[in-house]
Amino acid sequence: MSKLKNDLFLRACKGKKIQRTPVWMMRQAGRYLPEYRAVRSQSDFITMCKTPELAAEVTIQPIDLIGVDAAILFSDILVIPMAMGMELEMVESKGPVFHKPIRTEEDAKSLSEVDVDKSLRYVLDAVELTKKELDNRVPLIGFSGSPWTLLTYMVEGKGSKNFSEAKKMIYNNPKLAHKILKKITKGVTNYLNAKIEAGCNAVQIFDTWGGILSQSEFFEFSHEYITQIISGLKRKDEPVIVFAKGVYYKLKRQIKCGADVLGLDWTMDIGRVRTRLGDKVALQGNLDPTVLYAGHDTIAKKALAVLESYGKGSGHIFNLGHGILPDVPPENAKFLVDFVKEASVDFHK
Amino acid sequence: MSKLKNDLFLRACKGKKIQRTPVWMMRQAGRYLPEYRAVRSQSDFITMCKTPELAAEVTIQPIDLIGVDAAILFSDILVIPMAMGMELEMVESKGPVFHKPIRTEEDAKSLSEVDVDKSLRYVLDAVELTKKELDNRVPLIGFSGSPWTLLTYMVEGKGSKNFSEAKKMIYNNPKLAHKILKKITKGVTNYLNAKIEAGCNAVQIFDTWGGILSQSEFFEFSHEYITQIISGLKRKDEPVIVFAKGVYYKLKRQIKCGADVLGLDWTMDIGRVRTRLGDKVALQGNLDPTVLYAGHDTIAKKALAVLESYGKGSGHIFNLGHGILPDVPPENAKFLVDFVKEASVDFHK
Repeated sequence: MSKLKNDLFLRACKGKKIQRTPVWMMRQAGRYLPEYRAVRSQSDFITMCKTPELAAEVTIQPIDLIGVDAAILFSDILVIPMAMGMELEMVESKGPVFHKPIRTEEDAKSLSEVDVDKSLRYVLDAVELTKKELDNRVPLIGFSGSPWTLLTYMVEGKGSKNFSEAKKMIYNNPKLAHKILKKITKGVTNYLNAKIEAGCNAVQIFDTWGGILSQSEFFEFSHEYITQIISGLKRKDEPVIVFAKGVYYKLKRQIKCGADVLGLDWTMDIGRVRTRLGDKVALQGNLDPTVLYAGHDTIAKKALAVLESYGKGSGHIFNLGHGILPDVPPENAKFLVDFVKEASVDFHK
Repeated sequence: MSKLKNDLFLRACKGKKIQRTPVWMMRQAGRYLPEYRAVRSQSDFITMCKTPELAAEVTIQPIDLIGVDAAILFSDILVIPMAMGMELEMVESKGPVFHKPIRTEEDAKSLSEVDVDKSLRYVLDAVELTKKELDNRVPLIGFSGSPWTLLTYMVEGKGSKNFSEAKKMIYNNPKLAHKILKKITKGVTNYLNAKIEAGCNAVQIFDTWGGILSQSEFFEFSHEYITQIISGLKRKDEPVIVFAKGVYYKLKRQIKCGADVLGLDWTMDIGRVRTRLGDKVALQGNLDPTVLYAGHDTIAKKALAVLESYGKGSGHIFNLGHGILPDVPPENAKFLVDFVKEASVDFHK
């Protein structure tokens, strides 16, 4: 950690004193960048994930082009179901599709344990290569989907509006759901441990679909497994960020999962959350991603509102409240990052 | 009101003493009923909305078949944009499409004022016919989309994932957004007043997309106009229900809109909301609609959990936390309604 030239992000995750608020953006290695699209035009999405040189290249693009304070390894949460033996197809305009979704006891038995060294070696190679090429400029974040979020994809087989199949499983066969979640949890734990060992300086768990559950189901089917993962991590000082989109409630219970940082979507009032949780965790977020469609004046105004809402002192990592959208002008992303770097200085005096 | 044979719903909206909790379901006049699909197979969706006999028929189906305690007039929130001159097409598998969405000052100028008597006479005829055929068995609810929710459809032109165009408008040209919202608000107010005058016993405002806004934008672009509508209603005793899906925050400020009833989605803790708001409003909701995919035991258990969470006394209208899904078995809907009718008696002793 001490070797890093810019460790603002890591210090903020631990609530340590810093000179300004660090900033990065979810999906920052993504389609809004012409340089990303140039790589993507030569190669399909899964191949990019599986080719360390390509993954490293697009991971580093936003560091060079946008100036963010942390890199996040280009990858996909669905590498875990793939490592469990599921065949993924990226269908243009439909998104990822598993042609054989997991619905029955039989299906669940067909899932293999995740052998990280064998099936996910390419991710670890990408971590090592990216670390080397980053040359300690900024920290590298590794990520995974939460077990519940991964289960929704594995059970639905494709994008879903109402998540009927995943919901049917938890209501009609909760034992089966728990069995699959346990298997995923073990795989994700090993996976994140391997990423940390390969050099990731922090990890983020994305619970993209935690918010479709009612409160008791969230704690039973999602939060419980996130907690198990975090307690199973072997880490020195690497912070864990949990981002459960749409899960706005029972925050004090939520942070019992052991996260160092709670990611907030843009519907949350970051100042109120800070008041509620005190200094128990750092907070990451939470500008509405669509603000980046606006002019620079509006971006500055809305970004300042987030900084003001959080208030003075450390413990805030500036981010969007969800991934950056593919049709955002890159100069607006750059403007936001520059603005936060400058305007946040006042909040650390 | 006194003429109604079953006025449980209306009494619950006002927090008056009742013998059991009333129950109805959003989208209860809908595709999950084979009897609805039989009507729909003879006629397209818009024609159903525009033909009072058909609208009345499907409105009454769930009263006869499922036994709910209130009817809600079959219609669509998009009748308002249509009455403002926008041409709607229902595209199979894509949903409703406006081929000429509203994006510019010019577009906004082309929107006409809503002339309810001229353009929406068919809705008022449907109300009158339905009231006649209901013969005072249960109350009739009329509804409208909120101005913000209507604006999203009018600006996007079709279903949307990120609501980029509507967000661009509020961030880049808030004045234009407010101008359109004012026009919609005037139309919706007149529309709901006409519905009440035609015989509706209550009205519900659906803010389906209030939850995509950050908090300050919700109050500025959605809540403000809901408040204006409610204050513009000419009513004797007809309650107003506001259902803003995903808007879980600042509840005390929310109820300042003047609603008698707050609708809750299934991610809310209805007991906590009641504790927070006291007896200032009644609450409607909030079973996860996907629970109706489960077996009867699970439906009973989860429905009881909602009743227990709300607790003893009046002021609760049992409902789902969102519309009933089209692939739910009708016998499960019937089971839920029967269960609530029976199990809720204990909560009113």
